[in-house]
Amino acid sequence: MFHHSSKLQYQVRVDTPDPQFAKYLQQAIGGIEGEIRVAMQYFFQAMGARGDAKYRDLLMMTATEELSHIEFLGHAVALNLEGAPVTAQEEAAKDPIIHAIMGGANPRHILSSGLSAMPVNANGVPFDMSHVYASGNLAADMMANVTAESTGRVLASRLYNMTEDSGMRDMLSFLIARDTMHQQQWLAVIEELGGMEANFPIPNATPPEHEATEHSYYFLNTSLDEPTPQGRWMHGPSFDGRSEFSARDKPEPLGQKPDLGKARPHSGAQKQQM
Amino acid sequence: MFHHSSKLQYQVRVDTPDPQFAKYLQQAIGGIEGEIRVAMQYFFQAMGARGDAKYRDLLMMTATEELSHIEFLGHAVALNLEGAPVTAQEEAAKDPIIHAIMGGANPRHILSSGLSAMPVNANGVPFDMSHVYASGNLAADMMANVTAESTGRVLASRLYNMTEDSGMRDMLSFLIARDTMHQQQWLAVIEELGGMEANFPIPNATPPEHEATEHSYYFLNTSLDEPTPQGRWMHGPSFDGRSEFSARDKPEPLGQKPDLGKARPHSGAQKQQM
Amino acid sequence: MFHHSSKLQYQVRVDTPDPQFAKYLQQAIGGIEGEIRVAMQYFFQAMGARGDAKYRDLLMMTATEELSHIEFLGHAVALNLEGAPVTAQEEAAKDPIIHAIMGGANPRHILSSGLSAMPVNANGVPFDMSHVYASGNLAADMMANVTAESTGRVLASRLYNMTEDSGMRDMLSFLIARDTMHQQQWLAVIEELGGMEANFPIPNATPPEHEATEHSYYFLNTSLDEPTPQGRWMHGPSFDGRSEFSARDKPEPLGQKPDLGKARPHSGAQKQQM
Amino acid sequence: MFHHSSKLQYQVRVDTPDPQFAKYLQQAIGGIEGEIRVAMQYFFQAMGARGDAKYRDLLMMTATEELSHIEFLGHAVALNLEGAPVTAQEEAAKDPIIHAIMGGANPRHILSSGLSAMPVNANGVPFDMSHVYASGNLAADMMANVTAESTGRVLASRLYNMTEDSGMRDMLSFLIARDTMHQQQWLAVIEELGGMEANFPIPNATPPEHEATEHSYYFLNTSLDEPTPQGRWMHGPSFDGRSEFSARDKPEPLGQKPDLGKARPHSGAQKQQM
Amino acid sequence: MFHHSSKLQYQVRVDTPDPQFAKYLQQAIGGIEGEIRVAMQYFFQAMGARGDAKYRDLLMMTATEELSHIEFLGHAVALNLEGAPVTAQEEAAKDPIIHAIMGGANPRHILSSGLSAMPVNANGVPFDMSHVYASGNLAADMMANVTAESTGRVLASRLYNMTEDSGMRDMLSFLIARDTMHQQQWLAVIEELGGMEANFPIPNATPPEHEATEHSYYFLNTSLDEPTPQGRWMHGPSFDGRSEFSARDKPEPLGQKPDLGKARPHSGAQKQQM
Amino acid sequence: MFHHSSKLQYQVRVDTPDPQFAKYLQQAIGGIEGEIRVAMQYFFQAMGARGDAKYRDLLMMTATEELSHIEFLGHAVALNLEGAPVTAQEEAAKDPIIHAIMGGANPRHILSSGLSAMPVNANGVPFDMSHVYASGNLAADMMANVTAESTGRVLASRLYNMTEDSGMRDMLSFLIARDTMHQQQWLAVIEELGGMEANFPIPNATPPEHEATEHSYYFLNTSLDEPTPQGRWMHGPSFDGRSEFSARDKPEPLGQKPDLGKARPHSGAQKQQM
Repeated sequence: MFHHSSKLQYQVRVDTPDPQFAKYLQQAIGGIEGEIRVAMQYFFQAMGARGDAKYRDLLMMTATEELSHIEFLGHAVALNLEGAPVTAQEEAAKDPIIHAIMGGANPRHILSSGLSAMPVNANGVPFDMSHVYASGNLAADMMANVTAESTGRVLASRLYNMTEDSGMRDMLSFLIARDTMHQQQWLAVIEELGGMEANFPIPNATPPEHEATEHSYYFLNTSLDEPTPQGRWMHGPSFDGRSEFSARDKPEPLGQKPDLGKARPHSGAQKQQM
Repeated sequence: MFHHSSKLQYQVRVDTPDPQFAKYLQQAIGGIEGEIRVAMQYFFQAMGARGDAKYRDLLMMTATEELSHIEFLGHAVALNLEGAPVTAQEEAAKDPIIHAIMGGANPRHILSSGLSAMPVNANGVPFDMSHVYASGNLAADMMANVTAESTGRVLASRLYNMTEDSGMRDMLSFLIARDTMHQQQWLAVIEELGGMEANFPIPNATPPEHEATEHSYYFLNTSLDEPTPQGRWMHGPSFDGRSEFSARDKPEPLGQKPDLGKARPHSGAQKQQM
Repeated sequence: MFHHSSKLQYQVRVDTPDPQFAKYLQQAIGGIEGEIRVAMQYFFQAMGARGDAKYRDLLMMTATEELSHIEFLGHAVALNLEGAPVTAQEEAAKDPIIHAIMGGANPRHILSSGLSAMPVNANGVPFDMSHVYASGNLAADMMANVTAESTGRVLASRLYNMTEDSGMRDMLSFLIARDTMHQQQWLAVIEELGGMEANFPIPNATPPEHEATEHSYYFLNTSLDEPTPQGRWMHGPSFDGRSEFSARDKPEPLGQKPDLGKARPHSGAQKQQM
Repeated sequence: MFHHSSKLQYQVRVDTPDPQFAKYLQQAIGGIEGEIRVAMQYFFQAMGARGDAKYRDLLMMTATEELSHIEFLGHAVALNLEGAPVTAQEEAAKDPIIHAIMGGANPRHILSSGLSAMPVNANGVPFDMSHVYASGNLAADMMANVTAESTGRVLASRLYNMTEDSGMRDMLSFLIARDTMHQQQWLAVIEELGGMEANFPIPNATPPEHEATEHSYYFLNTSLDEPTPQGRWMHGPSFDGRSEFSARDKPEPLGQKPDLGKARPHSGAQKQQM
Repeated sequence: MFHHSSKLQYQVRVDTPDPQFAKYLQQAIGGIEGEIRVAMQYFFQAMGARGDAKYRDLLMMTATEELSHIEFLGHAVALNLEGAPVTAQEEAAKDPIIHAIMGGANPRHILSSGLSAMPVNANGVPFDMSHVYASGNLAADMMANVTAESTGRVLASRLYNMTEDSGMRDMLSFLIARDTMHQQQWLAVIEELGGMEANFPIPNATPPEHEATEHSYYFLNTSLDEPTPQGRWMHGPSFDGRSEFSARDKPEPLGQKPDLGKARPHSGAQKQQM
Repeated sequence: MFHHSSKLQYQVRVDTPDPQFAKYLQQAIGGIEGEIRVAMQYFFQAMGARGDAKYRDLLMMTATEELSHIEFLGHAVALNLEGAPVTAQEEAAKDPIIHAIMGGANPRHILSSGLSAMPVNANGVPFDMSHVYASGNLAADMMANVTAESTGRVLASRLYNMTEDSGMRDMLSFLIARDTMHQQQWLAVIEELGGMEANFPIPNATPPEHEATEHSYYFLNTSLDEPTPQGRWMHGPSFDGRSEFSARDKPEPLGQKPDLGKARPHSGAQKQQM
């Protein structure tokens, strides 16, 4: 069960409201790299967690933190929209510089939300929940979570670079820090589960007889004119300790030329296909 | 530039066509765990690759392989739809067992595609390209790729379990094998780039002064009644070699109570808000 | 800031797991009538609330409750999936009755989530955040909230009727009750703001000179062969106390015949259009 | 059956074409507050109407009016795009002011539609029909309709404020007026059906024994540090005449701690979860 | 401006209600081959029509007819849902055959719409307006319209085959007939505009100097092992009367090997990319 | 099976990088008129092709070419983003002209992709695979392909007009040329199949007794005040050689007034509907 306390997890201060930056910040709320995504991803992973209950708890605790991130980012968006012109009569609207800035703003911040945050990204595209990765496989989910926190930290760093507002920079430096920890903690789960070798290939419970293992450890070079790039992926032991890497250049197809024959009557095809 | 040869990368054989399994297989084509996703993800990562060109080549070569996976899976879907009743007059349609099976099939395999594969998932929801993760950060992209191959192998293993058709099992055992290699090869890129410690936190180029590092290494326990779960996430050195993990129970908010004040005139609000 | 406690807001008990009912329950999680929608809708309304802070608090408190509803519904979905066959070899999978039931289940509950809840509706379509209505106008938002709770209670009642499981019926009777209160509380906000007459038309701050009031109180009968239906909408005082209702039959167009003239050169049109 | 006459329902005049305003106007066509939505919503409600046929007629008549609103708004968009530069060689394109204005325009108005309206919102996101709320419950649908007309009138008022073009203001003043009437007429249906008390809680046909009525009339304060806001929602008779409001502070969970146990073999989980 | 008359364009009769067929019929309403799509496509094309006004009229008249098709199809869906079990207590729900049939039905026909049509396809995926093709180029739009009516007639034919209900077959035979005419009438527009040779390539107003015409008339055989298929596409005059067809086997790339160099500082990339 | 060679199909040169043009170019990659769409459309049509194998080959060969178009367009986007400011500190970012230009850029080109192409359109909306038209009917698919190449060439021509960069114009002139050929080659398939008369109405295999042919050849004028526009659609032989065109003015409805009667108990409706 969830509870709420009235203060924000972190202080939000905007020295110079900037409607264009409000649009950019939306990526951190409703973008695929954003906070709705991680909040919901950890929440659904927690609800489906099977196995040692401590992983469920870890996921739910961090889902809860991410909800608080949405909250302070939402406040930051609203503060950046303070003073944005809402009528064509305002002085601001007649200032060509502000007019140009508003051309780069999200018009729905005025038209649809009344100067508030929305669950959309920096292009105004609503977040959709297909991005909630929760597979029922703990290791796969951890990799998905490290990924989400990595793209999240990339985004927060880029947003930090795009503003000179000291309040916004302070808030973003907190987000960057939390994303560091969240990357680390999901990696720590992998270590706790025995590390890379014990967990890969994911899922590690697939019986070997379900796998055509003769195809499991070679890199397939599908290029007609490039040699296989040199690197760990083509020699040395595999990271799951089961085999050695190799490479195959210009591979031959192993299958047939596909042929579905003629179309059946009454299948909606043209006569010429029958 | 792309080229094509006429045979499939791998042999596809269906002993007993099963329209319901055709629906399930769609998840491996147009699902978020499927082949369109990885083909396009690696392709867009390759097109945006900066730095050592060998990573670009690696990505493009594997993108090309994934296109071939779409191709043989598409053939497998069509073969599973062979003989599915397309009219209410057919004997098959009047057989209650086949009728029940068709209730579990995707009706658009008959109505929209004429007994062929579609770029949709097992619920008939079309794939959308927002799932192509290509961040411009090589390490983040590698984590995204390991994730994609992990959920892909989880899916292929589940599909393997859901069929008894030996042709389908053979094809899926090949997919399981290739997913093993693809997990491994993206991990190999991380190793080639210096391993976990050299790459985390992602992005590793974010200047420390952009990060509130006092918040970077503690686990935040947001539960009111549960202790912090014990594990590597709360003690010991962090995996980036920069600090030590710790934990904070029942944290106090660090921010203000948000207050946006009154609504502005002409902002579309009610009088009572002004 | 959000917090969590480890127990569910309400007891979840499933006497007879039913994978088909698990699919139906998804509508209450990820459907437009469901709990993700109201949780996020109240959350975003709260973040954008301007005016008397008590409405912000009301919204945030109920957003928090709705998060807890997602949580117990998610558990209910997982419990309904207990024992669903995950391999073709299981006895259950070979039982024609269970086979038929599984035809009516969501295959992604097996293929994608590993027997857990997903943020999708009963057709497997992911929830998308465009359904979060948060306009910045308090009265409009309250009407949106009454609507959401009304369709939510309609859905919960239908789900109640579709099951005979006493555990599920108990849980749904709680949801039905809470939806009753939530309908009532949002209506209470309207009353607190002065009632219907004080709030309509929404927004009540639109200056009368921005409105062609001669068109504001007649019902337009666009039918060629039906009289205007008799009712309060065509006579008597309007509910905002500003006018009297009337009706117009077979109205004449007030505008011109549209004509955009010829296409411009270089606009991508055919020569014949120029 | 539908028919058409060649003139617009209302006169459309644009004194000074403004491609940026064309982009804003799209919200009134293809936004969730726009005319496609209400046209389709009333149409589908009418097609599913059961009970007294007059409500069906009312819905169909107004659906038909809304189609006419799409039509004149579409014309307004096209007129605002008159003269927008379609080549980089035009004088207009070289004027820095016009260049800046075009930066705020929707490029697809040039690239995709050839200077015409599109069924998209002000961010260029296509309307999707999931926003057509038609529940089969007449009262729930009326609340949805009041909501749609309320957000519609909020939007029209904001658009009115964002332009100084007298033609556009005239057209928008007509839209504002019709939204007033449409709010009123759907409220009138509720009155005709017996008013609030007779209709709430929606659905009013849910048997009381399907509802845990001990949970139906208290406000749940989920905040850890805020008192329940004072207002009609916590005292006095409920609006359905069935009970009295009360409030619960810092509620205790009523449910269990969820526990799904171990993952099943062959379910795609990691060994460590089993 | 639109008008409505109370009777359906065509008689709808359902002898034996079939909830599964109701699901299939949805494809003709909310599928990409369905009636919402053509109604809206012709409507938006009409609103953007430039050039001879008769094409605008043609489009608007047929858009209006398609709205009437939605209407009778919507009625057909509702009639097919008559008697579908809405409670688990009904006799019908306990009949294993009806239970199996309902497994193949759309549960949202009960849960969300109360036994009525929805603007979704046969998988329950809502129609989205990105499928409204209206390019501002009359010939391109005509080809889009022929396509829409072709897939529409394919769909109607498949639906006809999938039912034995004489009422449904009668209604579908009318749809099949109207789709025939609509294919023909859009082809007639092309003829009226001067026929294929006068209109192709589309757009025919693109100046030849904007086209690398040396690449305009050869078929590119990208296969490594297949000869170019023999046919009109590789020899004889082109259909626009401008050139002769030819073919190129195993073409050489004309471009460079792409290389974006190193990543820039502060761009969110890893250090190793810089 | 697919293969790749390392050079681009066509040379890409950008003389003056332009982030706004990068945004526009996205329409040619991820727009409905773009290259992902045709690549995937031809690919899925090929995978479902039944009948003479040469059509399958034709489709697959051109699908492969379109993949190469995505590749060079992706490179063009990245080159146009060279030098775009990624921090607020850069000189460029402080230049008001560049600031204004960036207001018209896609912020996700900086925030999400790190200065690279994305699978989105010019509004930043991701491509979704519902636009892959592959019906199983060869003639319908050919019309869909002619349509796609027509809107594609319209788009390429508009993009050509929107830039003065000679490198971009050179690349677009190649695209315009290839779209010419692709329009032609799909028309050539129709000719190869016997031409218009042999193929229409599509599908040509629908038995005449499934069609209410008395409704197949008249144009329906649904306007109340406009005469039927004069043209080939209302007189002369139909293009399938089966009949003569005619027209019907102000048609009478052929169907009943719809009436669904009262709502059923337990169906979630209001009491007043029962």
